[in-house]
Amino acid sequence: MPDSPAPGRTVTATALNDFIRAAFEACRLPTADAQRIAGLMVEADLIGADNHGVFRLAQYVRRIKAGGVAVHADIAVIKETDSTALVDGGNAMGHLVMHRATELAIEKAAQRGVAWVGTRNSNHAGPAALYAAMPLKHDMIGLYIAVGNANHMAPWGGIDMLLSTNPIAIAVPTHEEPPVVLDMATSVAAYGKVKGAAQRGEMMPEGWMMDRQGRPITDPKRADEGFVLPIGSYKGYGLALLFGLLAGTLNGAAMGKDVVDFNADDKSATNTGQLIVALRVDAFGPVEAFKRSVDRVVREIRNSARLPGVETIRLPGEQSYAKRQARRAGGIPLHPNLVTQLDKLADQLKIETLPAA
Amino acid sequence: MPDSPAPGRTVTATALNDFIRAAFEACRLPTADAQRIAGLMVEADLIGADNHGVFRLAQYVRRIKAGGVAVHADIAVIKETDSTALVDGGNAMGHLVMHRATELAIEKAAQRGVAWVGTRNSNHAGPAALYAAMPLKHDMIGLYIAVGNANHMAPWGGIDMLLSTNPIAIAVPTHEEPPVVLDMATSVAAYGKVKGAAQRGEMMPEGWMMDRQGRPITDPKRADEGFVLPIGSYKGYGLALLFGLLAGTLNGAAMGKDVVDFNADDKSATNTGQLIVALRVDAFGPVEAFKRSVDRVVREIRNSARLPGVETIRLPGEQSYAKRQARRAGGIPLHPNLVTQLDKLADQLKIETLPAA
Repeated sequence: MPDSPAPGRTVTATALNDFIRAAFEACRLPTADAQRIAGLMVEADLIGADNHGVFRLAQYVRRIKAGGVAVHADIAVIKETDSTALVDGGNAMGHLVMHRATELAIEKAAQRGVAWVGTRNSNHAGPAALYAAMPLKHDMIGLYIAVGNANHMAPWGGIDMLLSTNPIAIAVPTHEEPPVVLDMATSVAAYGKVKGAAQRGEMMPEGWMMDRQGRPITDPKRADEGFVLPIGSYKGYGLALLFGLLAGTLNGAAMGKDVVDFNADDKSATNTGQLIVALRVDAFGPVEAFKRSVDRVVREIRNSARLPGVETIRLPGEQSYAKRQARRAGGIPLHPNLVTQLDKLADQLKIETLPAA
Repeated sequence: MPDSPAPGRTVTATALNDFIRAAFEACRLPTADAQRIAGLMVEADLIGADNHGVFRLAQYVRRIKAGGVAVHADIAVIKETDSTALVDGGNAMGHLVMHRATELAIEKAAQRGVAWVGTRNSNHAGPAALYAAMPLKHDMIGLYIAVGNANHMAPWGGIDMLLSTNPIAIAVPTHEEPPVVLDMATSVAAYGKVKGAAQRGEMMPEGWMMDRQGRPITDPKRADEGFVLPIGSYKGYGLALLFGLLAGTLNGAAMGKDVVDFNADDKSATNTGQLIVALRVDAFGPVEAFKRSVDRVVREIRNSARLPGVETIRLPGEQSYAKRQARRAGGIPLHPNLVTQLDKLADQLKIETLPAA
């Protein structure tokens, strides 16, 4: 690799895992917890959720150091029925809370057919797809909803940013096809895309953001003057609101004006709320028959006629699946800016820098 | 009321109920079933779901007469776990199937905390909000998803109409505020809106429909040349697909190319699939505290700052709630064309015409 001012670096999943684990251990997280988080963050990078994997490490470390996130996880089930549970995350890293919540949902669904587990006092847990996909290997469908960790959206017709772009992920198992995994924010463009455009000095298309007079914002440097727009105007607003009530308010977690902007504030506990539903496929019929039916729908769509100029009709989760294969084999490419940041972090935490593959 | 060529007519909920019941009785449905459907259809008209109430009566009757819908309901639970069930509707009217499915979901959720009930061999059941709202009076949250009864949407990038505008409804109980009830299709505009614009001779805004070359269709008379567009482009496509897999494929119901266009075909069983989830609020905390928290979020949003020219920030379900109050008191207004159609239907079925309030 050339020794240029800001080279990128391609790293193996194993090396990335070790680096992230070491970083959290240096922050005094127990090794098992550090390893758990590292595994999930690497998975985020493998599936191409580049804004939700190691990209977040420096921020996570900053929040831990500032006391905004608890180092010793005290995650407890504080309310329970046969098919539901409420998990209090004790302000632990969101990955730990959601991993625990999802395992519990899978256990309960195995017993009862379906389970719905909510969290409070959790934190940012990476991409929604991670948790929705966990039930897949148990031949279950997963559904995950979270309250986002910064309010970038206003109610439809309003200008006060009272809503986050609350995401949903749904994962459905397949037979031979890649699993169908939808993972989407309820805004037209995730806020990360706005920040990305700003970094690259690019303009945004109309429809991403609006200012407080209702005019489109196309210059991402003006992002502070407005808010991101919901998909389908009032419909996406409705989804963001209802997802917030289900994943936040119902669990006693932050929603609306109580949401802490975790980009601006390292110290306050976010009281993040999430929910995970696990549903047994065999509660509705034979598992293989279902998976084959999903394959059939997938192929029907993939092989259907296309608009002029369109080369491929994609299925949700297909690109992540391909990326995961490619990155497992060829490594995970990291942007030069990220490499610089991680090398600095290694220095600060006195851990070894992340080696190139 | 003036005796003009095509006057509208305002009718009481009771008169409308009696008329619809009589129509289904004339089609040889058992009185209890006829009454059940009438009650739900009137509720649809009361909440302002004008395309899903008595507006559909002539079509329902036509399909029953053509043998497309079963007259004697044989609705059976064919698979069951503690918290799930699969209901085979036996091709009965969708209202009967979904009413049964929702009652079962509520019973099971009362026992286990949450329940997920799917249907197959069901039919069009009116507006999604009807079933999502049924759990409310039990202090439960309701979530309903259905496979629509005609494919008006293509996969993103495609031109084959393999998807319906599969709707979702979510209902959340409140303390003093109207319940929060979201009821939306996954397309920018429901197909009924396109038909409405055609009837009124109006043009459509860009973004509702696209033709097979990818150009916007703004003349609703050209609707046959294209398809409706999903909210948030590929995101709404993803939602429609996943909702179809959950409400259709999982239940062994129609999805993708198997969906029967029930507007064009009166005879084929639609094998409609739906799903209802009921979730006990008290499985997560005290009911009243939750309802007060939802009220707080609702008021926070309603009272937030508005864009220039915006008079009111609306909450999902608020307008339906107000309409219901108004129509309970002042009657349900029916469009002249609908009145003509219903008078003809009365004549055909040899039942009394619907009296004005």
